[in-house]
Amino acid sequence: MKTAYINGSFFTMNDKFDVHDNGMMVTDNTDIIYIGEKNDDMLQRVDKVVDLDGKWVLPGLVNAHSHIHMTIMRGIGDDMLLQPWLEEKIWPIEQKFTKEIGKVSTLLGALEMLKGGTTSFSDMYNPVCIDIDEIMNELDKVGIRGALSHTIFSSGTDEDRRINLQEAERVARKYNSYADGRLTTMVAPHSPYACTPEALEESARIAKENDIMVHIHLSETNYEIKDIEQRYGARPVEHVRRTGIFDQPTIIAHGVVLNDEERAMLREHGVSVAHNPNSNLKLGSGIADIVKMLEANVQVGIATDGVASNNNYDMFEEMRIAALLQKGVYYDATKLPAETVLQLGTRIGAKAIGMPHTGSLEQGKKADFITIDAKNKPHLQPVDAASSHLLYAASGHDVSDVFIDGKEIVRAGECLTIDEERIIAEANRLKAYLV
Amino acid sequence: MKTAYINGSFFTMNDKFDVHDNGMMVTDNTDIIYIGEKNDDMLQRVDKVVDLDGKWVLPGLVNAHSHIHMTIMRGIGDDMLLQPWLEEKIWPIEQKFTKEIGKVSTLLGALEMLKGGTTSFSDMYNPVCIDIDEIMNELDKVGIRGALSHTIFSSGTDEDRRINLQEAERVARKYNSYADGRLTTMVAPHSPYACTPEALEESARIAKENDIMVHIHLSETNYEIKDIEQRYGARPVEHVRRTGIFDQPTIIAHGVVLNDEERAMLREHGVSVAHNPNSNLKLGSGIADIVKMLEANVQVGIATDGVASNNNYDMFEEMRIAALLQKGVYYDATKLPAETVLQLGTRIGAKAIGMPHTGSLEQGKKADFITIDAKNKPHLQPVDAASSHLLYAASGHDVSDVFIDGKEIVRAGECLTIDEERIIAEANRLKAYLV
Ligand SMILES: [Zn+2]
Ligand SMILES: [Zn+2]
Repeated sequence: MKTAYINGSFFTMNDKFDVHDNGMMVTDNTDIIYIGEKNDDMLQRVDKVVDLDGKWVLPGLVNAHSHIHMTIMRGIGDDMLLQPWLEEKIWPIEQKFTKEIGKVSTLLGALEMLKGGTTSFSDMYNPVCIDIDEIMNELDKVGIRGALSHTIFSSGTDEDRRINLQEAERVARKYNSYADGRLTTMVAPHSPYACTPEALEESARIAKENDIMVHIHLSETNYEIKDIEQRYGARPVEHVRRTGIFDQPTIIAHGVVLNDEERAMLREHGVSVAHNPNSNLKLGSGIADIVKMLEANVQVGIATDGVASNNNYDMFEEMRIAALLQKGVYYDATKLPAETVLQLGTRIGAKAIGMPHTGSLEQGKKADFITIDAKNKPHLQPVDAASSHLLYAASGHDVSDVFIDGKEIVRAGECLTIDEERIIAEANRLKAYLV
Repeated sequence: MKTAYINGSFFTMNDKFDVHDNGMMVTDNTDIIYIGEKNDDMLQRVDKVVDLDGKWVLPGLVNAHSHIHMTIMRGIGDDMLLQPWLEEKIWPIEQKFTKEIGKVSTLLGALEMLKGGTTSFSDMYNPVCIDIDEIMNELDKVGIRGALSHTIFSSGTDEDRRINLQEAERVARKYNSYADGRLTTMVAPHSPYACTPEALEESARIAKENDIMVHIHLSETNYEIKDIEQRYGARPVEHVRRTGIFDQPTIIAHGVVLNDEERAMLREHGVSVAHNPNSNLKLGSGIADIVKMLEANVQVGIATDGVASNNNYDMFEEMRIAALLQKGVYYDATKLPAETVLQLGTRIGAKAIGMPHTGSLEQGKKADFITIDAKNKPHLQPVDAASSHLLYAASGHDVSDVFIDGKEIVRAGECLTIDEERIIAEANRLKAYLV
């Protein structure tokens, strides 16, 4: 079925940053088949016409690194450094999860992402917290696009580790492509500090045999650099490279502490970086040098990390802080201009997480898009500077409608595929079991 | 008339950070006369009872430095450094303002502030852009609390400068207290780089003779430090001190570039700082060291600056970025914890701008408060961590109701005192005259 969307301002986020004011987009079921000026001939031949009434339209935002099973832990462990936060708060509480808690927490996260305009995400889940088969089934019904990756930890007994790796391999085989391709998976060794070199090598093998990406936390803190150097005689990037991980398409979360040589190494292996500015600040990890990454031609996506270190999934806010930080740190307002960062949060981020078929309004791409109705919003006025407002003034709360694979998922701020009231009530009821 | 507000969670922002879950607040017209646990005796004796239905209640936020006449310039001059931004964009465009443009732009700013939960602000206006008598009259009707300060510039001819100072003095005399004390003024020499030493001395005199505060941009950039040192042989803080300014209660905007000696000097003279983290980043000015300011017992308020360098008036976002930046820069997640920053954005900020009668829910304070309905908001769940969410997850878009002097100004997100539709339409129509 062909649908034409007319009377909107289309921010394509293509590599020329084209904007079509009062333009037109035509979708054929799940795909975009036309974007550009209004075309009356084409308009005659569609099955349905949607009048957007002046709304702004942009591709759905892409969150390159999250842990949505943790959503119920929002507000736990504020104002703590990464290591004690993980070891004293997050990991012990995750052990208390039931599969029900994991499901509700995940759906609460998906709900927040969708309402805030995120249509695609790359997630690392802790297998003690959720039943991935149930979650894949639930997220299929929700309609979001995502890569959900089983986290490999080298903890517990030898048997625990064997089971963890076995399950990682099962998930890798089963979910290479699921839900009409909307849901996928990666191999996700947690980090060089939480995985043995053998587990990293196994991760590389599983990724290679199943032709999927690797997703790993890397070079997040100065502490990690020292720790890995002490244990293995190499900095984290080199240490991970030696395990063969980078021979597979890989995305690393963070990259806060990188030197020139490491950036060149990432570039050489086509490794992408998920930049989590809020989380890096909140955990006292520091500020990743995105200017140098882009100069080194490293592909960068924008991400929130989990909401226990953020504490929300607002990708507009995340893009904004990403831009502002580089300007401040470099004492140079010209760094990371609006157009650049908006593309990192959409098209480039999509490529970084192995989803080049989404992230921009271009012919042949998936019909994943969101709308903003600026009309009654003082903070988005005057409207003629919309391209600026999208980065510097907007918020996830401004999102009106969300479409994924051409299907309407959020309408006027209400999610059509998740029972919001029930999930929120359940999250509050279940929270009591964790603290 | 006595009104009791019941069935809410009251975040007092007093110095003990008391929170009254399912508490009660009683106002007598413009003032808070009780805050605490629910008190049935007292409840019998009030004229009106308002059931808050579980909402969160906090004092209205305090924006310690803004330029709301510039709101119509949102999105102009992105990705530019301070000096070219002022000299090539902002100041030339301000010359094109008509009084009508200035009025609409100011009301658009007030509208955004109110809807986002800001009840008090300290503003520096450019007298070429507005008719202050008209604006004071308009803002009286709007009901917001604020100090609007005429900016003193040493530009143009001798006659221009004389008129500018004369008008500053007229405003200082007339608006010391206006609109039942809700509206006040300060003397606002723009900065040491845009004012002669004589203009600074005159500012000090006007402030002293009229018993009002001084509001000045100070120590914003490294460029300013070098410039003032070259011109006057002293760094900006010492240069301004010599003019007598600090003998009056003073608030400086920015303080990005300060050394220990200067922080001690500010403390010694009781000078407060308005911290504008987003604007400082966006203009490439850098990151103010708030940790050291607080250690030196300098009073700090949080502020947005104008929206051409922000680009919104969301004080929740501003408080959050203030907290996150210090953690990141210090590699220490314990810096600026939630309770501290929430108090800077409310009670301490109010003191900093000379309004100690607002900024917290305490007996004897003005009934300036806002509510948030978390019920249907995924990003504010689970609700038991509300104190954390107020800093780390909330947004100005979450604000439901706004009361100032006990009067309802915003109800369920709609401003009752400004015709939103008309102001937004006018702003878009008038923007065409500026660019
Ligand atoms: Zn992570
Ligand atoms: Zn300013």
